[in-house]
Amino acid sequence: MPTGLLTDLYQLTMAAGYFEAGKVKERATFELFVRKLPEHRNFVLAAGLEQAVDYLLNLRFTADDIDYLRGLPQFAHTSPQFFEMLLNLRFTGDLFAVPEGTPLFAGEPFLTLRAPIIEAQIPETYLLSTIGFQSMIATKAARNVKAAMGRGVVEFGTRRAHSPEAGVLAARAAYIGGCEGTSNTETGKRFGVPVFGTCAHSWIMSFTHEREAFAQLQKLLGESTVYLIDTYDTIEGARRAVELGRPVWGVRLDSGNPVELAPAVRKILDDGGLRDAKIMVTGDLNEYKIHELVAAQAPIDSFGVGTELATSGDAPSLGVVYKLVELERGAERRYTLKLSEDKATLPGTKQIFRYADHDLLARSKECPSCPPGSAPSEALLRPVILSGELIEPLPTATEARAHAAESLARLPAPCHSLFAVDHCWRVEISAELEHLAERVRGGVAQ
Amino acid sequence: MPTGLLTDLYQLTMAAGYFEAGKVKERATFELFVRKLPEHRNFVLAAGLEQAVDYLLNLRFTADDIDYLRGLPQFAHTSPQFFEMLLNLRFTGDLFAVPEGTPLFAGEPFLTLRAPIIEAQIPETYLLSTIGFQSMIATKAARNVKAAMGRGVVEFGTRRAHSPEAGVLAARAAYIGGCEGTSNTETGKRFGVPVFGTCAHSWIMSFTHEREAFAQLQKLLGESTVYLIDTYDTIEGARRAVELGRPVWGVRLDSGNPVELAPAVRKILDDGGLRDAKIMVTGDLNEYKIHELVAAQAPIDSFGVGTELATSGDAPSLGVVYKLVELERGAERRYTLKLSEDKATLPGTKQIFRYADHDLLARSKECPSCPPGSAPSEALLRPVILSGELIEPLPTATEARAHAAESLARLPAPCHSLFAVDHCWRVEISAELEHLAERVRGGVAQ
Repeated sequence: MPTGLLTDLYQLTMAAGYFEAGKVKERATFELFVRKLPEHRNFVLAAGLEQAVDYLLNLRFTADDIDYLRGLPQFAHTSPQFFEMLLNLRFTGDLFAVPEGTPLFAGEPFLTLRAPIIEAQIPETYLLSTIGFQSMIATKAARNVKAAMGRGVVEFGTRRAHSPEAGVLAARAAYIGGCEGTSNTETGKRFGVPVFGTCAHSWIMSFTHEREAFAQLQKLLGESTVYLIDTYDTIEGARRAVELGRPVWGVRLDSGNPVELAPAVRKILDDGGLRDAKIMVTGDLNEYKIHELVAAQAPIDSFGVGTELATSGDAPSLGVVYKLVELERGAERRYTLKLSEDKATLPGTKQIFRYADHDLLARSKECPSCPPGSAPSEALLRPVILSGELIEPLPTATEARAHAAESLARLPAPCHSLFAVDHCWRVEISAELEHLAERVRGGVAQ
Repeated sequence: MPTGLLTDLYQLTMAAGYFEAGKVKERATFELFVRKLPEHRNFVLAAGLEQAVDYLLNLRFTADDIDYLRGLPQFAHTSPQFFEMLLNLRFTGDLFAVPEGTPLFAGEPFLTLRAPIIEAQIPETYLLSTIGFQSMIATKAARNVKAAMGRGVVEFGTRRAHSPEAGVLAARAAYIGGCEGTSNTETGKRFGVPVFGTCAHSWIMSFTHEREAFAQLQKLLGESTVYLIDTYDTIEGARRAVELGRPVWGVRLDSGNPVELAPAVRKILDDGGLRDAKIMVTGDLNEYKIHELVAAQAPIDSFGVGTELATSGDAPSLGVVYKLVELERGAERRYTLKLSEDKATLPGTKQIFRYADHDLLARSKECPSCPPGSAPSEALLRPVILSGELIEPLPTATEARAHAAESLARLPAPCHSLFAVDHCWRVEISAELEHLAERVRGGVAQ
């Protein structure tokens, strides 16, 4: 379980500051969103909510954590009452979020968190990392799956993930984004994600003869057998696979040029009577290379994508931010924004209304579909936690994957390009929200 | 604690295969290394050994884990004896490794693991991820620290790390690489890394007036106070910091162009009598931007680096591999290598001998410094775990950081360039190792 200390120190010094300044009763509303989409992306697929919820429901500081904080110079002037408060801190606020697997655009909140200011401030770091990382990977997966045009894509990247636990979560997110499964066994067990894998080069090398390695594998795996045929010579490896015959699932190529090798291997398999044996290709793939292989009509049935998928190699961070949009003190309500150069934000709690061909970012209490005759729309941000309690079980990873597939299918074709397409999806700002923003900008007290 | 399932499924199918093929008693030796250095890098700084050792010493499969595996189609033909073995599996092998904070070059092992083949195979995924990730971040940190030319660099990247736990480990690795500390409080507690942080924009925005936010911060933090001055207007913010006077540590700029803003802010602070107040700059920094700011002589005292550091933004994965180099079956010993295109490896267990001006990659039992009159050299790979037991406590993160600083200082200046310099450090292959490779290449049985 994560500890309350897994946050930036300034969240805790600010918490102490809010406490000392008598602001503990103020309720703050924060929104988590991306300011702009990463390079080449036309959407971001939301993921990571399950881990965000786990964190909020289990947020605790132990006596040990508090002893550590007391010893820091930054807390030299902090009163003992703050630490007592921290020891008893629980998340008692509200969380609204879009379901995992929902495609979002710049400026649209993944989640809205409303809570007493200290409970709202401390989670910033953890939520940004959890939601940002998994959404980035789910997005990358969706791109790879799209490029594969119906061929399977399996996530193989834990070894290059940013820590083993990041590998577990990357595999979960990749599945939500449309991968068929993962090589990460822990992800399989923890999240019910299908797992794949048969053997590595070290298996082949551990036998004196490649033929023996293949025969033993076939004995072990039966119809799940995938011969890794490139350890010594790919063409020879393919011939050896034919010699062993059925049962077999297929062969895997992990090096060389698949545009040349896959047809040659296909011919050997077909000529050897293994027409139904599949060809899987792995090795430094990404959506761009998959697109090229598919365009070249290489006879490939399945792609295994590792490093680039588990690290979102061409866009390895997502610029998620967590911004204060509203503050309530008793009956008084104040809307907040940031005017910093290039980092301006819109004030007030928002809702995303999704229509058939655009989104409307509006104030949360607007009801643009309400007047008779209005176009129907879906409000994407839904209550998840109210007063510290989860209101209903979250969708599973499998359900989130189905939601992603369905939501992505509704986006127009230009949004599925592997490169950025201007205005592939229109996000309008409601007149009421614009009006609030103008009013607040005019009244910002410095 | 990590579970045994946190590995690629094929490690477990291969384990079953080794078991069924009667190879459980064979001892395998694997080496973990990078095939080539990432773009712009002239070395990789080794890190992550502490977590690798924790993993090996605690490697376990629970009854739950085994039940999960039994239900997978890949284990349909596996004997019950395999699962019994797995339930009792412990790591009983040997681990040799370079100390954390050691700079390495392409082809040089970070670690050598020798164990019964199943115990040696299963850890591959976890070890690659742990060592690869932390080494990548430690390397990135060393580059940022070098670019800062004596100014402090603090790691601020958890919010953009690939999961919160990746943030904890990135902060640890960044410290080993030379950062002064981190914003990640958990890293501070868990690894004794200094922690930094005062306030965010949300703190400023939570007060009606910026002046009140500054005054409350000063009351809270005293001499640790860092005013964040760019929420509304950086120049106005600097004037307000002067109004509040001492105690203060300094100010932080998080947006705008520091080449223009830092001198203006410096002048306001100096004219206002705060000559000793420091200027910290944050916001989308990396080693290239730090180099430019230092070259422009911007009056900056300290850099906070987030996203790019915690994700190694310009090189977000490290091509670490884990290769079988030797197999022992009773008295028989076999050396193994891979001939695949672009992925060829050298056989046999190796040692890195470091001389004043080059490295020698040799067979592990060579003693190139032994003949009288030989140049002195240091053998970098040292025993860490023998027969499953840790032989002595590992160095702390602080000790590893000192080792890194000392080792990096011994590299010639070209190796510290922010861009790749051919042959900045020579790595020779010993005649004996070359001879073994030729012999094995000639004898590879297909």
